[in-house]
Amino acid sequence: MTHLDFRSVRRHTDHLTEPLSAEDQTIQSMPDVSPTKWHRGHTTWFFETFLLLPHAQRYAAIDDSFAYLFNSYYESVGERHPRAQRGLITRPSVDEVDAYRRQVDASVLELMAQPGGDRFDDIVQLGLHHEQQHQELLLMDIHHVLANNPSRPAYRSRPSTTSGAVAVSTSWRSIAEGLYEIGHDGCGFAFDHEAPRHRAWLESFEIADRLVTCGEWESFIADDGYRRPELWMSQGWATILGQRWSAPMYWERNGDEWWVKTLDGFGRIEPDEPVAHISWYEADAFARWSNARLPTETEWEVAATGAPAHLDMDRTAALRARSRLTSTDQQWHNV
Amino acid sequence: MTHLDFRSVRRHTDHLTEPLSAEDQTIQSMPDVSPTKWHRGHTTWFFETFLLLPHAQRYAAIDDSFAYLFNSYYESVGERHPRAQRGLITRPSVDEVDAYRRQVDASVLELMAQPGGDRFDDIVQLGLHHEQQHQELLLMDIHHVLANNPSRPAYRSRPSTTSGAVAVSTSWRSIAEGLYEIGHDGCGFAFDHEAPRHRAWLESFEIADRLVTCGEWESFIADDGYRRPELWMSQGWATILGQRWSAPMYWERNGDEWWVKTLDGFGRIEPDEPVAHISWYEADAFARWSNARLPTETEWEVAATGAPAHLDMDRTAALRARSRLTSTDQQWHNV
Amino acid sequence: MTHLDFRSVRRHTDHLTEPLSAEDQTIQSMPDVSPTKWHRGHTTWFFETFLLLPHAQRYAAIDDSFAYLFNSYYESVGERHPRAQRGLITRPSVDEVDAYRRQVDASVLELMAQPGGDRFDDIVQLGLHHEQQHQELLLMDIHHVLANNPSRPAYRSRPSTTSGAVAVSTSWRSIAEGLYEIGHDGCGFAFDHEAPRHRAWLESFEIADRLVTCGEWESFIADDGYRRPELWMSQGWATILGQRWSAPMYWERNGDEWWVKTLDGFGRIEPDEPVAHISWYEADAFARWSNARLPTETEWEVAATGAPAHLDMDRTAALRARSRLTSTDQQWHNV
Amino acid sequence: MTHLDFRSVRRHTDHLTEPLSAEDQTIQSMPDVSPTKWHRGHTTWFFETFLLLPHAQRYAAIDDSFAYLFNSYYESVGERHPRAQRGLITRPSVDEVDAYRRQVDASVLELMAQPGGDRFDDIVQLGLHHEQQHQELLLMDIHHVLANNPSRPAYRSRPSTTSGAVAVSTSWRSIAEGLYEIGHDGCGFAFDHEAPRHRAWLESFEIADRLVTCGEWESFIADDGYRRPELWMSQGWATILGQRWSAPMYWERNGDEWWVKTLDGFGRIEPDEPVAHISWYEADAFARWSNARLPTETEWEVAATGAPAHLDMDRTAALRARSRLTSTDQQWHNV
Repeated sequence: MTHLDFRSVRRHTDHLTEPLSAEDQTIQSMPDVSPTKWHRGHTTWFFETFLLLPHAQRYAAIDDSFAYLFNSYYESVGERHPRAQRGLITRPSVDEVDAYRRQVDASVLELMAQPGGDRFDDIVQLGLHHEQQHQELLLMDIHHVLANNPSRPAYRSRPSTTSGAVAVSTSWRSIAEGLYEIGHDGCGFAFDHEAPRHRAWLESFEIADRLVTCGEWESFIADDGYRRPELWMSQGWATILGQRWSAPMYWERNGDEWWVKTLDGFGRIEPDEPVAHISWYEADAFARWSNARLPTETEWEVAATGAPAHLDMDRTAALRARSRLTSTDQQWHNV
Repeated sequence: MTHLDFRSVRRHTDHLTEPLSAEDQTIQSMPDVSPTKWHRGHTTWFFETFLLLPHAQRYAAIDDSFAYLFNSYYESVGERHPRAQRGLITRPSVDEVDAYRRQVDASVLELMAQPGGDRFDDIVQLGLHHEQQHQELLLMDIHHVLANNPSRPAYRSRPSTTSGAVAVSTSWRSIAEGLYEIGHDGCGFAFDHEAPRHRAWLESFEIADRLVTCGEWESFIADDGYRRPELWMSQGWATILGQRWSAPMYWERNGDEWWVKTLDGFGRIEPDEPVAHISWYEADAFARWSNARLPTETEWEVAATGAPAHLDMDRTAALRARSRLTSTDQQWHNV
Repeated sequence: MTHLDFRSVRRHTDHLTEPLSAEDQTIQSMPDVSPTKWHRGHTTWFFETFLLLPHAQRYAAIDDSFAYLFNSYYESVGERHPRAQRGLITRPSVDEVDAYRRQVDASVLELMAQPGGDRFDDIVQLGLHHEQQHQELLLMDIHHVLANNPSRPAYRSRPSTTSGAVAVSTSWRSIAEGLYEIGHDGCGFAFDHEAPRHRAWLESFEIADRLVTCGEWESFIADDGYRRPELWMSQGWATILGQRWSAPMYWERNGDEWWVKTLDGFGRIEPDEPVAHISWYEADAFARWSNARLPTETEWEVAATGAPAHLDMDRTAALRARSRLTSTDQQWHNV
Repeated sequence: MTHLDFRSVRRHTDHLTEPLSAEDQTIQSMPDVSPTKWHRGHTTWFFETFLLLPHAQRYAAIDDSFAYLFNSYYESVGERHPRAQRGLITRPSVDEVDAYRRQVDASVLELMAQPGGDRFDDIVQLGLHHEQQHQELLLMDIHHVLANNPSRPAYRSRPSTTSGAVAVSTSWRSIAEGLYEIGHDGCGFAFDHEAPRHRAWLESFEIADRLVTCGEWESFIADDGYRRPELWMSQGWATILGQRWSAPMYWERNGDEWWVKTLDGFGRIEPDEPVAHISWYEADAFARWSNARLPTETEWEVAATGAPAHLDMDRTAALRARSRLTSTDQQWHNV
């Protein structure tokens, strides 16, 4: 693994916020969503708190209140602003957070350029991986923010052509029973919960060689998938009744068609694209409907590690594998 | 009563928003608070909906979505955006609401300037009084928004000198028993619930000739006012226990002193200023502590109508009168 | 007013519980309902706490825990069991509460029979009026308890014939404007909030000379009374939507008919009986639908005091008067 | 495995209810608790629904409403009474449920005694194991019911001597890495989720050879176990703050000692008895405090299957194992 580049990772965060107004960056559309402004401040606070304050000479915190506002859940570094109230913070402004980012970036680059500055590489790498996680969250969160505007604005303009995704029919890959190793192998960066590498036994199973598509999900809905209790875990059934779910999040019935709010705006679903924004309960019910089951984490990691390119690991956020139980021979097969 | 001037009322709303950023104007800090941006859009929608659309020739709605977003609770003009979700609207932007205001203002002025335009005076006057109500709400609401920022920003800078309020000691004004008239007398503008004018009988009572001050409230707190159940209505007592109230809203203990968050920022309470931001339960408990009682609406209207200047009707938002029961002669006296 | 008789009032409470099993007397079907057993213990605790403990020589509390369990909201006599948890008390048993009642009754009668025992008449009378209030509550509460059993048991068997109520058509009684006296006149027993007697001015109004019937309420429902927002206060409309109310409490649609769960069991509504178990919001909407309005408390007291026998003051629990506004002459008429 | 005996299992349920009054058997002290009466009706309904109605000639349901009241969550056999409202059912009475049990028992015994009656053995065995599960639940639930009575009644009288449990010091049993089989081996009765038997790989680990004691838990509390966030999962920490937990459920501070409400009443904790009524969060924090970790389900099953007698599998309800991570060699050890 090569090192992430400080400038380019930080610049990418700013790039992601370009389509967003100050208003967009400030609100919190539900407790689990953080404002864009908060993501930008928090990732910056990380460098200030764990790199600059302990290691940069004569460095003073740019604003003392930021330690309170931009701490997420690091109990060890003091009190923090309640998560569900992040959307109440109108001050500092977006412009002040911009300035905060620029000042911290300059100080980090100065520290790294000093003789021996490379001894901070590990903490810098951690901070950049942390920032990349928040880039994912930022997009997921702003998706929710924009989707709550009745005008259904797009985050970016949808390309004139469709995604061009073409789903081939699923085939099943067999994985033999055996003892496998999973977990981080010790080379390059990993978050702590990815270690230690350890052995796990797998019975033989089969797993689908591509993701479930929106078109397949339409078939599930059309086959009354959301109205048949026998397909659902008891808690899942209670959830979809209680929450009145009848389709994936962001899907809306539009005449005879299913449309979906994406970051590209509101449009008809693409039948060949992987389905996204479904809960575990929905994935589980879909798998049962498919005469399959969900893979375990171990099965998934073993299968994905050796997966062919078209398994498309960049889309794991959207992934819900399906798996299959062949009842005739009483063995577990995995989609 | 003279007519309100369209330009000056509308301009005053814009003037009130000058100290506020786009971020400040967008969020909703609790369900009962409306964003500044919403107040500005809603008061404009009022003129568009009730004046321009029915009466201006060839006028088309500037944005169809505004009918949904900026309707408050006028059931008769269609569906509306849920009140508790006003803070989720980042689009239209503050700038777009500005433009909306300017366009509607131009159309209203054009309509009023036409021959016979004065036949719309009544609806314009209603819209302007409606807007003045929202100016009050806007300040009340932005007070709450700013108070939720840990940095406790001021809405405007506090004058270098204190308010200069000097509270004289309370004296008691006697009002004789008799049949009084209350309600709107039919001259000039009034909201519908202020009519009809009607007669009401009052027993003789006494009412204080000035408002309760912050200093008096400090004495109430110091005398364990918030810890003695015998001073409170049963529901009030349950409320202060449940909500952990021990002082008026926005008051905070700062060392040995009571400080308060106002629109002017965070500072020591002014003992001679009228107390504000208290609930009915607190006012009632304070009155009982003072060996008095709260006046009825009728008593208040009768007393206020003939009140001397220093009763200060401009501060009615802050008003909680106290009233007194003299137990010796078993008669009701009113503060 | 003559004195209530201690033995007969106490015996009547026991008589009311005869149709009820230990199970029926123990549960709490919602927070506002108290178990039958609790009503019986609480009314007994009242005599023990306010009469026997302070005044009977060498009297010791029968069970110290009863002071905690059977206090309702008398802050001055110590801590109490939370109201919403009254249904968690399986011990003491119903039989133990029976024994508690008998023991306290014996001690009270002994105290009253002593020379000078009549100096406790006031506190005894208060306790008996208090017990009569709880007799009403006991019936209201057990109604709710039994109605939650899917088998819809009757509290007592319904007489074979119907109530025989025959509603005459409503006529309107005029009450002239003037200064009236309301409140307790000082003779005989009254609860504290019924005093002091005081004067109130009334404009002339009309009030219906009988209660609204179930049959009239059926017409209100059939005329879409629960589906027309213009008939409802804004908060009432929100309430019926939120709670999905479409008829009075305990009414259920049974084929083409309205049936109702009463203490007599489940049966067709009696069209000529007064309607019961409606909220203020429903009464207000019904009055508006009738081109009338609800009377004020003062109007009601003045009208009721001189009411003819068929106004049937024994049914006030079921009373929802309607009142009428005749718009032609802009005067208030009261049904 | 030998067959459970129908008469003795059914009789044991009745035996368990002997100390309980009708009041005790009726209420529901929280949504997860079922009334004793309901457990007794539900286990009886099971035999009626799955054995008698489909298989006994000319058998008619004893009461049609029981199908609704006593169904737990068998979606396939129709609508059911909401779980959280089981405590609202005062009718049928405890006596009627007794009669229901006797009638169903007689019919079951008659059916089993018929020629070929042994073809129902499987369903009878399932029903008896089901009833044994509910015997456990019945005790757990009545514990909660009685604990909510301020008088803290005992379910049964505590023996005059203490339990006599003496905890030896923990020693650690090593389990070697390897491929193990877990799950039901197909002989005798098992519930469906105990199958199929399958292989699992375990790294070597150590596991404590006895349960954690109340005395050890006292040390955990005394060492601020409930006040140190570093010992807790983030969600666990939020839970104990939110719920104000500072000791296991049913423990109460009594002067300088910890007392506990058990089925035997309220008394001082027995330091050598296994601790009970703790949540997963608490077990996890305790394990971390012990420099250990909780075992996985697989580790537990492998260890328990070959456990020495003093591991005391009859107390698994009370079991929270602890496990240990030896940090020096970076390997996982299991207590």
